[in-house]
Amino acid sequence: MEKGENLLRAAMAAEVRLNASCGGDGTCGKCRVIVDKGKVEHQPAPALTKEEIDEGYVLACRSLITEDLEVRVPPESRMGRIIEKERAAPSCGRLLSSREWEERLASLKFDPPFKKVCINLPPPTLDDNMSDLERLRRELNRKCDVRCAEIDLFALKALPGALRMGDWEVTVTLLETGTECRVANIEPSDTSKDHYAIAVDVGTTTVVAQLVDMTSGKTLGKKSDYNAQASCGEDVISRIIFSTKDNGLKKLQSLIVGTITKLIQALVEDFGIDSGSISGVFAAGNTTMTHLLLGLDPRYIREEPYIPGATFFPCIKAGDVGIDVAAPTYLYCYPCVASYIGGDITAGVIASGMAEKSALTLFIDIGTNGEIVLGNKDWLISCSCSAGPAFEGGGVKHGMQAVRGAIEQVRIDRESTEPMIITVGQAKPIGICGTGIIDTIAELFLSKVIDQRGKFNLDGENPRIRNGEFGPEYVLAWAEDSGTKRDITLNEADIENLVRAKAAVFAGINILLDSVSLGFSDIDEIIIAGAFGNYLEIEKVVTIGLLPEISCDKFTFIGNSSMLGAHASAQSKEVIEEAGLVARKMTYLELSTNTRFMDQYVSALFLPHTNVEEFPGVLEQLKS
Amino acid sequence: MEKGENLLRAAMAAEVRLNASCGGDGTCGKCRVIVDKGKVEHQPAPALTKEEIDEGYVLACRSLITEDLEVRVPPESRMGRIIEKERAAPSCGRLLSSREWEERLASLKFDPPFKKVCINLPPPTLDDNMSDLERLRRELNRKCDVRCAEIDLFALKALPGALRMGDWEVTVTLLETGTECRVANIEPSDTSKDHYAIAVDVGTTTVVAQLVDMTSGKTLGKKSDYNAQASCGEDVISRIIFSTKDNGLKKLQSLIVGTITKLIQALVEDFGIDSGSISGVFAAGNTTMTHLLLGLDPRYIREEPYIPGATFFPCIKAGDVGIDVAAPTYLYCYPCVASYIGGDITAGVIASGMAEKSALTLFIDIGTNGEIVLGNKDWLISCSCSAGPAFEGGGVKHGMQAVRGAIEQVRIDRESTEPMIITVGQAKPIGICGTGIIDTIAELFLSKVIDQRGKFNLDGENPRIRNGEFGPEYVLAWAEDSGTKRDITLNEADIENLVRAKAAVFAGINILLDSVSLGFSDIDEIIIAGAFGNYLEIEKVVTIGLLPEISCDKFTFIGNSSMLGAHASAQSKEVIEEAGLVARKMTYLELSTNTRFMDQYVSALFLPHTNVEEFPGVLEQLKS
Repeated sequence: MEKGENLLRAAMAAEVRLNASCGGDGTCGKCRVIVDKGKVEHQPAPALTKEEIDEGYVLACRSLITEDLEVRVPPESRMGRIIEKERAAPSCGRLLSSREWEERLASLKFDPPFKKVCINLPPPTLDDNMSDLERLRRELNRKCDVRCAEIDLFALKALPGALRMGDWEVTVTLLETGTECRVANIEPSDTSKDHYAIAVDVGTTTVVAQLVDMTSGKTLGKKSDYNAQASCGEDVISRIIFSTKDNGLKKLQSLIVGTITKLIQALVEDFGIDSGSISGVFAAGNTTMTHLLLGLDPRYIREEPYIPGATFFPCIKAGDVGIDVAAPTYLYCYPCVASYIGGDITAGVIASGMAEKSALTLFIDIGTNGEIVLGNKDWLISCSCSAGPAFEGGGVKHGMQAVRGAIEQVRIDRESTEPMIITVGQAKPIGICGTGIIDTIAELFLSKVIDQRGKFNLDGENPRIRNGEFGPEYVLAWAEDSGTKRDITLNEADIENLVRAKAAVFAGINILLDSVSLGFSDIDEIIIAGAFGNYLEIEKVVTIGLLPEISCDKFTFIGNSSMLGAHASAQSKEVIEEAGLVARKMTYLELSTNTRFMDQYVSALFLPHTNVEEFPGVLEQLKS
Repeated sequence: MEKGENLLRAAMAAEVRLNASCGGDGTCGKCRVIVDKGKVEHQPAPALTKEEIDEGYVLACRSLITEDLEVRVPPESRMGRIIEKERAAPSCGRLLSSREWEERLASLKFDPPFKKVCINLPPPTLDDNMSDLERLRRELNRKCDVRCAEIDLFALKALPGALRMGDWEVTVTLLETGTECRVANIEPSDTSKDHYAIAVDVGTTTVVAQLVDMTSGKTLGKKSDYNAQASCGEDVISRIIFSTKDNGLKKLQSLIVGTITKLIQALVEDFGIDSGSISGVFAAGNTTMTHLLLGLDPRYIREEPYIPGATFFPCIKAGDVGIDVAAPTYLYCYPCVASYIGGDITAGVIASGMAEKSALTLFIDIGTNGEIVLGNKDWLISCSCSAGPAFEGGGVKHGMQAVRGAIEQVRIDRESTEPMIITVGQAKPIGICGTGIIDTIAELFLSKVIDQRGKFNLDGENPRIRNGEFGPEYVLAWAEDSGTKRDITLNEADIENLVRAKAAVFAGINILLDSVSLGFSDIDEIIIAGAFGNYLEIEKVVTIGLLPEISCDKFTFIGNSSMLGAHASAQSKEVIEEAGLVARKMTYLELSTNTRFMDQYVSALFLPHTNVEEFPGVLEQLKS
């Protein structure tokens, strides 16, 4: 550790993964560490309690190293391992099984943009002495009815050697885009059975990569990891701010590229394949993530009138952005719609099939932004509501991502107001994740511990309901039961943050419906997408008024539809074409300057809503 | 210098430029150096006289360093500076003036493949909030009627910043190829006046680069240098052999790329332009040079049935092959016809205009290979005859390239048989270049010092005609007059080498004419291309039987037509299209396995020819 260096930066350099939701701004208070030996020079940190400060807690981002240190990272500050979990069938709504996923993919025409063709060429003679390339073109045309205008330099360089090594049998990788066809790779002999693609969901928090067998379209394996950019800020806005700093854009690009490269390498190793047999990386990410992956300046996404550099991206070599794969590998990025409706949503809409059906569908992906698409095969309209980080545990004192030790499910006894909690990985609780927060609020509301405005009723006997250092709060776990040796609580400010988030989403849904003069009852299906959405319980979500109260059979949990769409694009040219059409035809409503949205938002800042009669089921429960 | 290292390699590493025609094979005997201090371990060198060995001469390529050395490089072993010289009007044939060159270029439709368009975009608003790229596309379409499907990643990355820096005025560089249009660069404000291209003639020996103003098509400046590959072998065959050695191909590519980069940088500096304003490098080179520039394995060019990797090349970024220019710069390589009819010849045919005329034209470029094209606007037929290095001074004891000190013109008094010599740069003679050799042979023949077979008549009194260590020879310059302090001679073996070279070319011309059942008298024009050809004197050339004896007014010296063609491609899309058509329609006759060619060749191994009656003018002179 260099003296004078920022402790958060030193941790990043040492590859110690700390939570740092706000990008080092000092506001989220998540990067707390304990200085056991030595001293740091630290700035005030209002996010720490007096008690914590006395115990030696500092915020890494607010601390400068002045001497040799021994620093301990408490469990809640560590970024947990991502736990892949299959959700149990929800009591309300249909969960798309992985079998249904594969069925959906199998229903697509299998006609991938990359094809491997094994071809035998007649060896040249003095009478038939055209160049290797012209010979290849002639035979591709004669034998495969393929007219390839262009060849990549890499493939051309491989051609003479491959032809002779393979005794005039070579395998040609063709890239077909629109009307164009180009030769992307040449290998000696018949390698047409070894053909793979990588589908990537480039999430702001988590990146998931799948290895796709390009001879069948089958998923061979999946890997996921945190987006390494997380250490530069948790949400897209803090990433954009980080990108404007010195070398920030370059740094962010190299971090996401590093994450993707690692996932690909892990898949390549696990399945013992040659990375040269990967033709394409098919990526779906939100507009900012796509910009950062490609190295495009995202700063104008954040400034009114919120303009992205591009929504359609050139098809380039994966190596051009730094992804460490073999030279012939291409990178396809899903087209975006606007600054806050990205390629992940386009991919999700494609994956959901809503753009092919007549049924009126509401597609919703809840995270830091709530992205909402309404429509059917004839029209699509979308908006994005800034929910803030509450759903992902941000802005909540003991909030955290849904990793080991996060309280994810909560029931509160209506009479005793005692909680029952379940954590991710069933470990000692160290914090509370989005679904846990929603559960807690819904349960506190139904138990009448909090009122419609989310304010605590402190009249009861239960010591769990108390006035804490940060105002009224509910103790979910006592210090002796927690993994952090501190009480895990949810306070009024936390609840307020989540209510604001849910209000934004609910208002967004209303605005979309209003804009086409439709109402909740017109909705045929609500598709809930995304890692967070997949673990929601409709009853709880409706109780707090995040989603409208409509019949259970209209809800579908699609899961990571961005990943599904990314996979679909790898196996079908039609999907790629369709994605372009969908992105082009989707109307985008900008909410940030929409006054009607503000009205709707304010009305939704209640549990479940100002107009509680829109939630008759919730009303019923409150009465009981 | 490392002990045990080869002295030629050590010289190359130290950037000492030695002649090394045979690539280090020990046969050309041109890399002679004098070891003044210390000893080398050397292998036998038959190319050195006993006297030279006694004087301390060794061949660098045959010598291993065993201790610290002091080595002197005699003038004849140094690669001289290239001297640009305007040729005086020839007594026979028409010399295309540089004015006529520019006129030829001006006659082409000015419609370059790269265009710069300055465009003003309406700034985005909340109601018109499409991405920067979609806005650009929309306005290009609206205002310029340009539909650009693709954008290069570099240009896309520049777009958001440029738009705002230029206050929504940007200059777009468009690349139009065939039906496709792509955005290659974006610059803030109006830079449409700063637009340049580089035209390059990638010669085996010499590389010439021109800076072209892309707003007018005018040539702004020209630079030339040796192809740095020369140190790896003088001709294409020795380069191909070198390329098969460890890292040989990579080394050769980096050498030619280095030469081109240096020339571009010199032009950029001289004219104070921004290298970012260079849209394209337009290169014409023979098939092997083009392969080496692109890093394509050329080895099969040399092996029967003589197959190049490609004859049409992808349009790539100049940076992709390592040329150190700004990221947006493209590289276009002229298409080739076959292994030994390259892009330089396609460019030459385009430059000559022969493919647009009805007149029967014979286009001939004489160098190590004699490349010959016969035809008109309806058909084109070509062949390449391996002339060996004699025309460039190779395989000739005192032969050298046409650099300072090379004897370039020779007259021999018919009675006294005393010579009159002129050297390049009018310096003390240090050797004899191709035109000097041709002159000497023609003069010796007409003076009857040598007979029709090139054999010396040693009966005379003149001490210049003597039996030397390497057989009968003629002394062109005595040691006391020479820059090398040794007699400069031309011997029977030298003459034999040149006669073989001229016989190959003459036989090639005959075969082409025969193949279409035409004769010399049907030829309307003979166009002599190339640096060497440009200094030929038709009378001498006809006297030795290199070219047929036809009327003076049918000869045109076009000069560096490869350069002219390269320039033409920079300023006209039509030329690029035409080049593709010409390369495709040109028939190639392979001579190396043609038995009729062998017959013609043997008949031409005489001065001027077995059938001397085909040269009535020469016969006349011999009689006088």
